[in-house]
Amino acid sequence: MDLSDITRDGGASITQQLVDRFTTAIDGGDLRPGDKLPPTRTLASEAGINHLTAARIYRRLAELGYVTASVGRGTFVRTLAPAAAEERGDEWQSYVLPERPATYQEEILSDSFRLPEREGMISLATGFPSLRFHPATEMAEIAAQVFDDVGEAAMDYLNAEGLGELRERIAIRGAERGSVAGADEVIVTSGGQQAIDLTARALLEPGDVVAVESPTFTGTMLALRSTGARVVGIPVDECGLDIDALEQVLARYEVRLCALQTSCHNPTGTDLSQERRARLAQLAVERNFFVLEDAVYADLRYEGVRLPALRRDAPGHVIYINSLSKVVGGGLRIGWIAARGPVRDRLVTLKQGADFQSPTLVQHMAARYLAGGGYDRKLRESLPYYRARRDALMDALERHLEGEVDAAPPKGGHHVWVTLRREIDERALYAEALRHGMAFTPGGAVRAERRGPTGLRLSFSLAEPDQLDEGVRRLARALREVRRRERTAPRAAPFS
Amino acid sequence: MDLSDITRDGGASITQQLVDRFTTAIDGGDLRPGDKLPPTRTLASEAGINHLTAARIYRRLAELGYVTASVGRGTFVRTLAPAAAEERGDEWQSYVLPERPATYQEEILSDSFRLPEREGMISLATGFPSLRFHPATEMAEIAAQVFDDVGEAAMDYLNAEGLGELRERIAIRGAERGSVAGADEVIVTSGGQQAIDLTARALLEPGDVVAVESPTFTGTMLALRSTGARVVGIPVDECGLDIDALEQVLARYEVRLCALQTSCHNPTGTDLSQERRARLAQLAVERNFFVLEDAVYADLRYEGVRLPALRRDAPGHVIYINSLSKVVGGGLRIGWIAARGPVRDRLVTLKQGADFQSPTLVQHMAARYLAGGGYDRKLRESLPYYRARRDALMDALERHLEGEVDAAPPKGGHHVWVTLRREIDERALYAEALRHGMAFTPGGAVRAERRGPTGLRLSFSLAEPDQLDEGVRRLARALREVRRRERTAPRAAPFS
Repeated sequence: MDLSDITRDGGASITQQLVDRFTTAIDGGDLRPGDKLPPTRTLASEAGINHLTAARIYRRLAELGYVTASVGRGTFVRTLAPAAAEERGDEWQSYVLPERPATYQEEILSDSFRLPEREGMISLATGFPSLRFHPATEMAEIAAQVFDDVGEAAMDYLNAEGLGELRERIAIRGAERGSVAGADEVIVTSGGQQAIDLTARALLEPGDVVAVESPTFTGTMLALRSTGARVVGIPVDECGLDIDALEQVLARYEVRLCALQTSCHNPTGTDLSQERRARLAQLAVERNFFVLEDAVYADLRYEGVRLPALRRDAPGHVIYINSLSKVVGGGLRIGWIAARGPVRDRLVTLKQGADFQSPTLVQHMAARYLAGGGYDRKLRESLPYYRARRDALMDALERHLEGEVDAAPPKGGHHVWVTLRREIDERALYAEALRHGMAFTPGGAVRAERRGPTGLRLSFSLAEPDQLDEGVRRLARALREVRRRERTAPRAAPFS
Repeated sequence: MDLSDITRDGGASITQQLVDRFTTAIDGGDLRPGDKLPPTRTLASEAGINHLTAARIYRRLAELGYVTASVGRGTFVRTLAPAAAEERGDEWQSYVLPERPATYQEEILSDSFRLPEREGMISLATGFPSLRFHPATEMAEIAAQVFDDVGEAAMDYLNAEGLGELRERIAIRGAERGSVAGADEVIVTSGGQQAIDLTARALLEPGDVVAVESPTFTGTMLALRSTGARVVGIPVDECGLDIDALEQVLARYEVRLCALQTSCHNPTGTDLSQERRARLAQLAVERNFFVLEDAVYADLRYEGVRLPALRRDAPGHVIYINSLSKVVGGGLRIGWIAARGPVRDRLVTLKQGADFQSPTLVQHMAARYLAGGGYDRKLRESLPYYRARRDALMDALERHLEGEVDAAPPKGGHHVWVTLRREIDERALYAEALRHGMAFTPGGAVRAERRGPTGLRLSFSLAEPDQLDEGVRRLARALREVRRRERTAPRAAPFS
């Protein structure tokens, strides 16, 4: 494309001229669907503009529907012609939207909520608790008691940090493992996701460095990335986060936050060993960074000993997160943060600005449910059920994918982390598996690094043993299909 | 302070050296509590460092407890010696917290939730609905029905945009006034505050310009400011937002978003006139900016005719927000957004990242409450109650503050906007009023401009007529006291 006749006479802006140049080239067929555009730095130097302007031009083209950007791969001309979009009456296609399209993590997370509704789909993409353990009868009684006891106040506003009775209950539970020293450390949130999101927003600014275990939970990756922080992945082995690797990162960067799940890690199902806990706590204090200790699966343990919370050893540096979502139903949206000092105050301020508070009625219900021992009963009742499904999934992996994959049985939680012995185009496998009627969480959505051994997360909590078997059988078929295609058309994706 | 011996030999960082210099000066008494530090730009040029480093040094000093920063005033040595903080065992005083302390808006909003609990306090700082109109009996029945009908699903996860039945109900109501064209435009949020916060996060990036009516709602100001956008205030008169003033701003800046309440505006109680609605809708389309139309008080009308929603005339450009909080209780945390196109998709993605979804049970309850006509009955029942309190407050203002203030009776909502005829130190008046046992919302927390005529918001929804009278009497006393002090000690605040 010839850029020599860009004018700088104060008429149409340079941005607009270049946008027009590209749209004309695409509309006229000089650039075709799938074509890769030059990197922004190349465009900037060729057009004599600065790099930010070049990035803005591509963003504008994306908003107009002409191109699509893929992190780490580049910007490509889209298949869908803008004319088609216009025919759909998309008047807003002409707006300037200041931000980026949904990220891969966001799309995968969104899929995970939607795919289970598809007819015939076996979704192993979500680790929600099974509906059968949602204590509906008990909660109905509790809701009635709350209205009887507190009346109108069940719908009144509360302080941002949440209901005193619930925070007391959480503090009592947390005291056992050292995660919480008192109710004044507790902030009630709308589930673990809000707890993570608020923590990320409280501590991270664009350009800050955050270390995160990799693979991790999609929602954690999403929250960390949304702050504009630089996310550095730390590998996980059978003893949890690799502290030696973390130390190497600490030597290179001023790390602001280290985020991890210390017990029954999602997705590998490992625990952080006691020795590593001690080292991590010491490092946090010495090197002055914060730790996000996410313990949402800690109660769901099938084997091994539960260790004290990491926060016990560095309560000022560790922000502890937990929720009721993994045992009694995520639709309650009850989670919490334990923190102290200025960080706690800042989290309360952010919670207030985010949504004032979590709903009052549900907080009352959660407080009474915990106080009445319902949570512990439900946990005991559900563990054998989930353990049986874990074992069924491990059997299915051996049956259908032996020799192809590695997977260790998780000590707890709802997931098995599966790595492929030979690399494969992960997105192609994801798409092919959906076509075969099964869904999983692709490693790219839970990994901090752009590249890595192909991994995928399979969740077993919502499926019957025979569905787990059939799901893995479909996955194996999809895998064979993608391998077959890769052999026959090795260069099918010219711009990847 | 001598800065000539700062070394750049790669040992201690310059930041650390300068931090040490300041702490030594403060510990040694060379700088004393209340002393003002040089502006960051002065420090930068004197020390030969860049401006960001200078700002970082002051932030670090603030984190260490040595100084306190006041926006627009400067940085001052704190009264509390760090030693005292250490004795309290505040280990975290030594952490590097990357962000700013709570803003004035955040503090005032936090006060508004806490002050009513103080013994003897008459708080006219919050416009919550009265507890007497919280439909506890009806909601208890509805909750029981929900558990009967949907059982375990009452606690299961939902899609981020919310429960289909509730979105349908909202769409039916919204169709009447043109705010919503269909359920697929609706996103359920945790109250109006989350709706505003998500909209701000979806559309604004640091440095963007957002126009907001001024005065406005504290939570709106807080959400807009938290994005790093530049907030430009637009005055409001008896016909609502001043469109001529907005046009002047549009001529100078590329405005991304204009935020306003179109009906029963908080805090002035005015409506945006039909003629101005038409102009604003046209401007939004022509000039390609988004409008946040917040209608949370629109139903609470004592007089005048309710106009169609602004969104009716520019549905792609207007993001409409409403909630149940002002009529049946904010503790429910049920609000919503109506939007379409890529903005709607982005809002759903942000909602998912923020907290996955609003609690399922409460969404079911809200859907049934709206469907059963409970909301409209409650509204009819409560209007005379609030109107009587509005009139009582207007009477009290005339009785105790005649000649001192101007205030027009609001057409709807829970607030009266009061402007003082002679300027006064607003923070001093706020503090003095608290000492006299009454609370209000100071204009500085709801105004976009740093300076302006002294204004304050008085909310009448939670007080009995005699309390409104007593509250205004206390305010009048506080006002006289501050005026007296200003006369006798005109320079009491040396650094303001």
